[in-house]
Amino acid sequence: MPTALDFYFDFASPYGYLAATQIDKIAARHARTVRWHPILLGAALKATGMRPLAEIPLRGDYMHRDAPRFARYLGVPFAVPPGFPIAALAASRAVVWLDDGDPVAAKALARALYDAHWGRGEDIRDAAQVAAIAAPLGVDAESLVAAVQSQEVKDRLRARVEASLAAGVFGSPFVIVEGESFWGADRLDQLDWWLSGGR
Amino acid sequence: MPTALDFYFDFASPYGYLAATQIDKIAARHARTVRWHPILLGAALKATGMRPLAEIPLRGDYMHRDAPRFARYLGVPFAVPPGFPIAALAASRAVVWLDDGDPVAAKALARALYDAHWGRGEDIRDAAQVAAIAAPLGVDAESLVAAVQSQEVKDRLRARVEASLAAGVFGSPFVIVEGESFWGADRLDQLDWWLSGGR
Repeated sequence: MPTALDFYFDFASPYGYLAATQIDKIAARHARTVRWHPILLGAALKATGMRPLAEIPLRGDYMHRDAPRFARYLGVPFAVPPGFPIAALAASRAVVWLDDGDPVAAKALARALYDAHWGRGEDIRDAAQVAAIAAPLGVDAESLVAAVQSQEVKDRLRARVEASLAAGVFGSPFVIVEGESFWGADRLDQLDWWLSGGR
Repeated sequence: MPTALDFYFDFASPYGYLAATQIDKIAARHARTVRWHPILLGAALKATGMRPLAEIPLRGDYMHRDAPRFARYLGVPFAVPPGFPIAALAASRAVVWLDDGDPVAAKALARALYDAHWGRGEDIRDAAQVAAIAAPLGVDAESLVAAVQSQEVKDRLRARVEASLAAGVFGSPFVIVEGESFWGADRLDQLDWWLSGGR
């Protein structure tokens, strides 16, 4: 069986959202599967000494024109959410929590959270908001809210963020397959080419 | 007549080179022409508080894998030149000098310099090296060496770098057409789409 793709993303990242709308389609074309890994970019930014894109003069302004244009280019909905860029703790913990027992549900929740946050501009900072988005997927709201507040799930997310740093992830979106790294929604075409045997 | 594209690039920038191999082809598909503007990114990096990509931990290493892969994806030659990233003063001044009287020759020289520097990994830091690359285009070596050392040409390049900053250019490559900005070799597909009427 061909190796799965590892797809790393921060819910706060608009380019992570754009990649999330495409990554499974691309993988499927090459009979590959995708493991979704929510991360928190703060740690990676610290490692590279960078600031969040939105805070960089000129580049931040450009991003606010570029990301919606990129969405129109891909033909997917786009709306800037409140509080951008958020600290996506509740959303990331909820996905990591679900991922332990039910990776399919975890991926469905991650997709639903991204669609809500960047497709419709909804707030996903609070556990209650995350639970409301998870409910149609059959996830019990009370269990989710309890999980994202538990030390065990907090630790699990922290361990996964640390594992992403150890794997060399420094941005969102980031794809690693067979040791090859692709950073950015703008590298998906090259990922597709690479999966086709392009070298 | 449709508006020309303004294409800004730093000879030190590998992604500027990659874009330079494509930009005229893309413009031609839409019956557009391209004005080439050599710039020095140092001033733009200062404005955004950024460092050269090569100096940023992790991102610099990634660039050294990404840029050659991008070149293979495009099917163009690629070689890392000595002294990367160079201060491309002589090359930029030579192009600006030629551009005053003969924009066609200036563009041909810019292309030849990029092909030498990033296509074949040649050094283009010295005026004599630039003159050797310009010679096959019928440019007199002595005149070129004198021009790149003249205060008038130095001032002309400085004025063009300042004009690029005033236009909002903060990276290489950078394309502006009808007020719309595209930053990065990875936005050429979207530029193509935009020129086709994509909005």
